[in-house]
Amino acid sequence: MQRLHGHAGVTQIGELTTPALLVEAAAFEHNLSVMAAALPGRRLRPHVKAHKCTSIAKRQAGVGHRAFTCATLREVEQMAAAGLGDDLLLANEVVDARRLAPVISAGARVTVAVDSELTIDAAARAGVREVLIDVNVGLPRCGCAPEDAGRLAEHARSRGLQVRGVMGYEGHAMALVDREKRRRVVEESMDKLRVAHERTGGTIISAGGTGSYDINPLATEIQAGSYVLMDTAYAKLELPFRQALSVLATVVSVSPSYAVADCGLKALGMDHGNPSIEGGQVWFCSDEHITFKAERPVRAGDRIRVLPAHVDPTVAYHEKMHLIAGNNVRETWTVDLRGW
Amino acid sequence: MQRLHGHAGVTQIGELTTPALLVEAAAFEHNLSVMAAALPGRRLRPHVKAHKCTSIAKRQAGVGHRAFTCATLREVEQMAAAGLGDDLLLANEVVDARRLAPVISAGARVTVAVDSELTIDAAARAGVREVLIDVNVGLPRCGCAPEDAGRLAEHARSRGLQVRGVMGYEGHAMALVDREKRRRVVEESMDKLRVAHERTGGTIISAGGTGSYDINPLATEIQAGSYVLMDTAYAKLELPFRQALSVLATVVSVSPSYAVADCGLKALGMDHGNPSIEGGQVWFCSDEHITFKAERPVRAGDRIRVLPAHVDPTVAYHEKMHLIAGNNVRETWTVDLRGW
Repeated sequence: MQRLHGHAGVTQIGELTTPALLVEAAAFEHNLSVMAAALPGRRLRPHVKAHKCTSIAKRQAGVGHRAFTCATLREVEQMAAAGLGDDLLLANEVVDARRLAPVISAGARVTVAVDSELTIDAAARAGVREVLIDVNVGLPRCGCAPEDAGRLAEHARSRGLQVRGVMGYEGHAMALVDREKRRRVVEESMDKLRVAHERTGGTIISAGGTGSYDINPLATEIQAGSYVLMDTAYAKLELPFRQALSVLATVVSVSPSYAVADCGLKALGMDHGNPSIEGGQVWFCSDEHITFKAERPVRAGDRIRVLPAHVDPTVAYHEKMHLIAGNNVRETWTVDLRGW
Repeated sequence: MQRLHGHAGVTQIGELTTPALLVEAAAFEHNLSVMAAALPGRRLRPHVKAHKCTSIAKRQAGVGHRAFTCATLREVEQMAAAGLGDDLLLANEVVDARRLAPVISAGARVTVAVDSELTIDAAARAGVREVLIDVNVGLPRCGCAPEDAGRLAEHARSRGLQVRGVMGYEGHAMALVDREKRRRVVEESMDKLRVAHERTGGTIISAGGTGSYDINPLATEIQAGSYVLMDTAYAKLELPFRQALSVLATVVSVSPSYAVADCGLKALGMDHGNPSIEGGQVWFCSDEHITFKAERPVRAGDRIRVLPAHVDPTVAYHEKMHLIAGNNVRETWTVDLRGW
């Protein structure tokens, strides 16, 4: 708990309308530099779905990562429009890729994940020139069977597409807290991706995420996104990244046994469960409220920091995020990659 | 499961970018008219937090409900700007009400929920003229103790505020599937609100929601919101309202044992659990995907309808919703009450 008061001059976080998404500058810079040292340049293809913010992508480009991973057509469009179109991978399948045509015509390099003849044909029809064959490495989601990758690569080449290689997301390993267990599942997954890559050729093997960034034995590039902001789910993995993201909330009501602040279901991704509050125990969230038990007395008007359990769907609720240092707001960024 | 194809002329839902929020016109009209018959005019104060859309609020006003409930300052601002400011209740506490001053100056009638001297003083300072004393009726959230309501009403009057009455949300009753059990919890809650109202005076007793709209024995007005769109959680209560809301998604990948469509955690409120799919069993959701087992074979490119478990945080993710009849898009509405 902390009480924050505004001062003249620089914008203070006490002056922000709540709920407000905060990015703590020191943790953010730490995360950027730790990752850039571990996976310099093209070894990391940052996934923008985690922050949905071209201002953050520019910072990632500034430390050497100029190739990005996107989850939606809008993310590709907006990243290209922001001048970040050197090498964009749309890492999800689309059955209608027509919106990519003007992006590519305007000069962006766009590679698309494909896992079926239909998605290959959609890419070819839209004027896409490059694809990765998306391979199911164990997570029941998109991706072809490893033994089918060669056939699809051939089909793509027959449609005039260049096959840059393969991708395969070992998402089922990410939540394994035990590092050795996680490493084994990552290795099993990459064995499948290796089989697929032998059949497709190409120079890229794109895989991984924040939970496997340093234990993936195969990937030529890692698609990590969460590392730069972090959440309480990833914090359990004891990674070298710091929790940079929080939601600033105002205590609006206090009872003898609990308090209520103005940060609820519409300000937090809830699929990983309740958020956390330092110095407090969260009881439950409502649309615009969090009810919690504070360890020390709080008063209406106090500001608290709520730590989201899952960064991606949290960020997607907010229009802006504020880079802060102490109580000063250094920069305010638009979360400009939201929506579809 | 259904396959949708575009036709010339009217926009077809097959042409929509997915994920897309759909409102089925017949169910929507049914919900509007059933509620307007049960609680005509001022007996209902529709809660706009459920749909966050002034186009829907205008339809509610059109069937006689001209007083509205809001959850955020932005909802109040935008409702007033849309000409729906006859009688707006901000049903949540705010410790800084200054943004209401221009709304009131411009002619809107704004009543604010207060539960402490601090929130009363904040309302008075902002030029608010009318308040409801918010009473805790059993849900551990905002609201004063019933026996404290008289003291707060006196304080409000001493600050020049008119006390229109009380409000108290029996939210802890809403999820009780057994109607008799729900009725008992509602009655116990309203006993508390009655005690409070005897101490405050005023003509308004504002309470209730979709789950108690016809079993609240005390409220002069019901704050229901979900009834107009509905979700799978409220569907369990066997109310006379129909599921009008769904998320249209496109199947993007198909495997022998499951399929994947493009509607995920960023298109669905997840606090009530997984969404549902007619003709399919949902396995899990990822940021932009839903993995499900279909009862009948599906192909990449097929469109499906995903039914959200919780309407409010689902709507808050979307920029637009589409009123549809069959495969025709009748109207497209902006979800213009999002954010804070």
